[in-house]
Amino acid sequence: MLLHLMTWPEVEEYLQTNTGIIIPIGSTEQHGPTGLIGTDAICAEAIAKGVGEATQTVVGPTINVGMALHHTAFPGSMSLRPSTLIQVILDYLTSLTAAGFTRYFFINGHGGNIATLKAAFSESYYHLSHLNIPQATQVRAKVGNWFMCRAVYQKAKELYGDQEGSHATPSEVAVTQFVYPESIKNASLSPDVNSGYPIYGASDFRSHYPDGRMGSNPALATPEHGEQLYNLAVKELSESYLKFAQAD
Amino acid sequence: MLLHLMTWPEVEEYLQTNTGIIIPIGSTEQHGPTGLIGTDAICAEAIAKGVGEATQTVVGPTINVGMALHHTAFPGSMSLRPSTLIQVILDYLTSLTAAGFTRYFFINGHGGNIATLKAAFSESYYHLSHLNIPQATQVRAKVGNWFMCRAVYQKAKELYGDQEGSHATPSEVAVTQFVYPESIKNASLSPDVNSGYPIYGASDFRSHYPDGRMGSNPALATPEHGEQLYNLAVKELSESYLKFAQAD
Amino acid sequence: MLLHLMTWPEVEEYLQTNTGIIIPIGSTEQHGPTGLIGTDAICAEAIAKGVGEATQTVVGPTINVGMALHHTAFPGSMSLRPSTLIQVILDYLTSLTAAGFTRYFFINGHGGNIATLKAAFSESYYHLSHLNIPQATQVRAKVGNWFMCRAVYQKAKELYGDQEGSHATPSEVAVTQFVYPESIKNASLSPDVNSGYPIYGASDFRSHYPDGRMGSNPALATPEHGEQLYNLAVKELSESYLKFAQAD
Amino acid sequence: MLLHLMTWPEVEEYLQTNTGIIIPIGSTEQHGPTGLIGTDAICAEAIAKGVGEATQTVVGPTINVGMALHHTAFPGSMSLRPSTLIQVILDYLTSLTAAGFTRYFFINGHGGNIATLKAAFSESYYHLSHLNIPQATQVRAKVGNWFMCRAVYQKAKELYGDQEGSHATPSEVAVTQFVYPESIKNASLSPDVNSGYPIYGASDFRSHYPDGRMGSNPALATPEHGEQLYNLAVKELSESYLKFAQAD
Amino acid sequence: MLLHLMTWPEVEEYLQTNTGIIIPIGSTEQHGPTGLIGTDAICAEAIAKGVGEATQTVVGPTINVGMALHHTAFPGSMSLRPSTLIQVILDYLTSLTAAGFTRYFFINGHGGNIATLKAAFSESYYHLSHLNIPQATQVRAKVGNWFMCRAVYQKAKELYGDQEGSHATPSEVAVTQFVYPESIKNASLSPDVNSGYPIYGASDFRSHYPDGRMGSNPALATPEHGEQLYNLAVKELSESYLKFAQAD
Amino acid sequence: MLLHLMTWPEVEEYLQTNTGIIIPIGSTEQHGPTGLIGTDAICAEAIAKGVGEATQTVVGPTINVGMALHHTAFPGSMSLRPSTLIQVILDYLTSLTAAGFTRYFFINGHGGNIATLKAAFSESYYHLSHLNIPQATQVRAKVGNWFMCRAVYQKAKELYGDQEGSHATPSEVAVTQFVYPESIKNASLSPDVNSGYPIYGASDFRSHYPDGRMGSNPALATPEHGEQLYNLAVKELSESYLKFAQAD
Ligand code: NI
Ligand code: NI
Ligand code: NI
Ligand code: NI
Ligand code: NI
Ligand code: NI
Repeated sequence: MLLHLMTWPEVEEYLQTNTGIIIPIGSTEQHGPTGLIGTDAICAEAIAKGVGEATQTVVGPTINVGMALHHTAFPGSMSLRPSTLIQVILDYLTSLTAAGFTRYFFINGHGGNIATLKAAFSESYYHLSHLNIPQATQVRAKVGNWFMCRAVYQKAKELYGDQEGSHATPSEVAVTQFVYPESIKNASLSPDVNSGYPIYGASDFRSHYPDGRMGSNPALATPEHGEQLYNLAVKELSESYLKFAQAD
Repeated sequence: MLLHLMTWPEVEEYLQTNTGIIIPIGSTEQHGPTGLIGTDAICAEAIAKGVGEATQTVVGPTINVGMALHHTAFPGSMSLRPSTLIQVILDYLTSLTAAGFTRYFFINGHGGNIATLKAAFSESYYHLSHLNIPQATQVRAKVGNWFMCRAVYQKAKELYGDQEGSHATPSEVAVTQFVYPESIKNASLSPDVNSGYPIYGASDFRSHYPDGRMGSNPALATPEHGEQLYNLAVKELSESYLKFAQAD
Repeated sequence: MLLHLMTWPEVEEYLQTNTGIIIPIGSTEQHGPTGLIGTDAICAEAIAKGVGEATQTVVGPTINVGMALHHTAFPGSMSLRPSTLIQVILDYLTSLTAAGFTRYFFINGHGGNIATLKAAFSESYYHLSHLNIPQATQVRAKVGNWFMCRAVYQKAKELYGDQEGSHATPSEVAVTQFVYPESIKNASLSPDVNSGYPIYGASDFRSHYPDGRMGSNPALATPEHGEQLYNLAVKELSESYLKFAQAD
Repeated sequence: MLLHLMTWPEVEEYLQTNTGIIIPIGSTEQHGPTGLIGTDAICAEAIAKGVGEATQTVVGPTINVGMALHHTAFPGSMSLRPSTLIQVILDYLTSLTAAGFTRYFFINGHGGNIATLKAAFSESYYHLSHLNIPQATQVRAKVGNWFMCRAVYQKAKELYGDQEGSHATPSEVAVTQFVYPESIKNASLSPDVNSGYPIYGASDFRSHYPDGRMGSNPALATPEHGEQLYNLAVKELSESYLKFAQAD
Repeated sequence: MLLHLMTWPEVEEYLQTNTGIIIPIGSTEQHGPTGLIGTDAICAEAIAKGVGEATQTVVGPTINVGMALHHTAFPGSMSLRPSTLIQVILDYLTSLTAAGFTRYFFINGHGGNIATLKAAFSESYYHLSHLNIPQATQVRAKVGNWFMCRAVYQKAKELYGDQEGSHATPSEVAVTQFVYPESIKNASLSPDVNSGYPIYGASDFRSHYPDGRMGSNPALATPEHGEQLYNLAVKELSESYLKFAQAD
Repeated sequence: MLLHLMTWPEVEEYLQTNTGIIIPIGSTEQHGPTGLIGTDAICAEAIAKGVGEATQTVVGPTINVGMALHHTAFPGSMSLRPSTLIQVILDYLTSLTAAGFTRYFFINGHGGNIATLKAAFSESYYHLSHLNIPQATQVRAKVGNWFMCRAVYQKAKELYGDQEGSHATPSEVAVTQFVYPESIKNASLSPDVNSGYPIYGASDFRSHYPDGRMGSNPALATPEHGEQLYNLAVKELSESYLKFAQAD
């Protein structure tokens, strides 16, 4: 059930028995010489649709551009400032809560979004509590990071070991290859790739990670791996969502 | 060329010869008893991809949620405040201009976005002019509304006459039927439908347009019409984009 | 009835039978070699006073500085950012709505204000709906652009033909000559004047319109024309206001 | 020299030898049963024009609506929030400084504006210092409160003694009578009028000052007093301005 | 009673009989060659604790960084922008008012904070009046500047005469010596020290006050003076607080 | 070296050889029936001072009020909104970076601050990169959470096992007892204490954690434990700071 493919009377009916919604959030940022710029949004959206089907939950529109300021020294990267993203989330939750939604599960494809999302949830609970919306105090939001699912993590470890790295990883590239097999990119990847260096500003990031990868070897990715990882993520996040949505 | 399916070195190469980008912007809002909530984003995205192919231009990620505060009394509608959308556009243009883009063509599917987009462009030119970005003063942005294309307008008139209306129109519904033929909705539509009443706040809107339509009869839409309208829009906006991008 | 020349008990009494207010909004920006920097505010204020008298409506204080960022490469131009102007309008409407006003008719003298005003109205309806103000959902706002009145447009066409142009026009200059006959300026005006070039940032604007005019020949203006145009605008906007204020 | 009655080439020429500008700022707020709602703007504007003539200085557009939140429980009062007014001032100073102005003298008619103006000046110096504007570090701004001029204060004391009060004072009412002799209002004024109670929020204000006056007897005002006070204010503020503008 | 050393049930009990709170606010800014950077916060906090004890009032956490943009050309100075400080105060008052506090007495150690605090109080009254908090309209806030107490002023005059100056004064330095006798600094102080020059931006300030002092001779300070001044301030501000808190 | 007890020339000298600064950040929030409201600020400040001494680093003023919106249903709790805290951090880093600081180590006492601090660092790097400050691109910031130090965690586990809980923990209470032995509180604590419930809005939090504790038994705390924990935290964070400050 994609919100975009529903009508408002269908949403009205849905809300009679269910006040949960899944919102995919990704990023538009460099993913190394071979990773797609939309990697994080593509993964989040695909997995969110899977979770939506598995759990019979409405899936809202994908937030394609997230908090990726540290990637903006690479062309094609886009980012909201954290203060902008907070207002975006606050607007989303205000619109939807006024209509009756109360459980917000953000399926996230980008580590850089996590901190700002959590800040945004706090700001939103507070903001909503001051509006004249009856269900405001029942609102709950949660981030589900597909790449942090236990089963995904273990599979990635098994498939790629240390070459998984932490950005432009073979596991996320594999999921994009599963989703867009016609968009698999090739480029020579240096075996020397930095890792372990903390993330600060954009120019600092690029000087330490000159081709954009963080300790990863995305050449190991295959569409078949992507399918396996996709399935593991959908299964684990579906359970996680249901636990969240059904909690007292 | 979808930005999401490119790598950063591909963007870097593109920027050697082309500094234009097309950004689809829609809305997530009620479209009457049978129109999809994602209608405006679906149309804008599909047409933007067509224009991108026709003109060999990068197409950025779709802005799915726009300025639709007046629709928020119908469940499933989402909206940014204008002040939030201005910051979003400003962040997009800052990221992309720093990388070298200078021509921004927003293919828009929702009338409610136009005023805020224009305000956002003014704010962005000003903001960029105060940053240390060499190409800031060369930045130009333009809105291309597919539903206002002359050929689209004439075809809609020819197909639907007065029943085109101004929201949840058969022409936009037709384009979504062309894009998502498996999501065609049916519902009985009252022949009595209001029109001509101005748009103010959300509750005022719903009291005047109780089922969400503004003077339209979307039951007239067919996927075949959608394809015709899509083609007309792609053709006209491609010309419009090229004229914009190549101007001195 | 100018709000500035009323007392609060007079306003209290007025509100017993009338909740409408007219607010003039202009701009402080270059108007070519001979046009007054205050042209847009002068015209809007004069015409608003006329409409206020004709319709027995309170006229609020003039917003002298509007959204004119694109004119700021010419000395003497002033501008609010769109995001600032939105907050200004929101504050105006909050103050006045709390007191009982519900119909806001902005008589506007500057095209550059329109987009931001519309965005501001949307933001204000939303904002007001979340406050504890009983009449918030009845609030309606409208822009009346004097220079777009049908009768004004036709008269300008008749008087000036193509030399009306679109900025620093003889028609607006004529109205200022009618209002301030002692401030008629003379300067040699090149017969070559650009037109048709779209508006982007401030430096881009000045490079395309070096003396500030957009396709106009303000030397054609006379105070007598100004009086005619003033009368036509007052008449048409008075009708437009009454229709707006009296609508259900 | 009113900025609104100048052309941009005249401003350009002025800036060759003078970088000072006077900006009147008032308020739109209740002034008791007989005081005009525009009192503070009327006085500030009239006196600013006088100072502009006396010192050959450009006078910018009047800020009609200031910081008067505490008056908003009386109908007809309007106010910006302090955070909005700060952005307005910042926008004014950015536009004008980019053009070459560096000395800003705000002639103020309303005590409630002072704190926010000072805050806004600090914010503006800081903001300007981070832009690429050469003259940013030379910018200086000052508030000149006409009602606090020594000569004005002494004359008011002499004319009205304790009945001057601190809001809706006979001295400010007198100046408006001098400027608008056709708008002199009459109403019975209770001899009992509160004074000395501090200013907090709007409802608190109205409960302590039920007719809006703060310890004043505006019935003592005459247009002749107004002229005297006007002349004293113009003289003293002209000296004050020149000292400010000519300081190293 | 320091809020930081209380438990929430103790606060709950306190609020049964008392809704007042004292909040110290200082600054982190240069205080000349020998004055501590924390001078304003140290004095405000010490005196606030004294007033809290004397009046049995809760003392909240010290705002250490205030509005000191004009000092930021000296290393070690920190400042909030006025617009930030307004939001900070608004957040403080919202949290505390929701819990039941209604009387806010800010004991202030820095002249540069006064304007922004007053603006923030206005913004907060307005903001609170629009929330669903019953006691919002009873909220009152006041600034108590210890250095402006009559008795302090007289004692400083008596001790230091003209050498008191207006920044990095011997009186404030003396209070810090009384509080931190182990942190008394020595440096040669030029007998030539500027004074009387108005405060504008940071670089302008430093160019006129090269060592940071404004007309003062802090070498005159002693810890004994500090104790005397401390006692005078505590006594006078305690009376001032009680009068404020107990007013109708 | 406390910044508050230094003079500006001392800071200037310090910056010749060291550009690091430690900033303690806590919170002002309920800590159960016996925990001090200032617990998080007290711990952060004490440990930061210890780290400052151990590493010869300047320690800035404590941020006493952090992001604790979820605690605000308990009286005495105070909070900034995340969007406010982001602006506060941005202002701190702008002031200090302009003076020459480039390494910011926030010693944090409150889990609720972490997300917003990380968001604020991203926003600050971006903001600083657009100012005219030479060292802007060298700026780095890091959060050091004393309660997450490995040695602290192990010691708490050893001392308290499962009764450590996650809020109003015996370990943090112990540190406050060590710092303020005269402020040890006693109250009967129910052995039944909830745990494991996620954090959403303020009223939801209080309904699940009615006395404010999250799974903890603070009655186990002793000042001696506090000293041990303090020493472990200082040691580990000193190492962490030096590694951060000395990294390339
Ligand atoms: Ni990724
Ligand atoms: Ni549509
Ligand atoms: Ni004009
Ligand atoms: Ni007044
Ligand atoms: Ni001081
Ligand atoms: Ni804690």
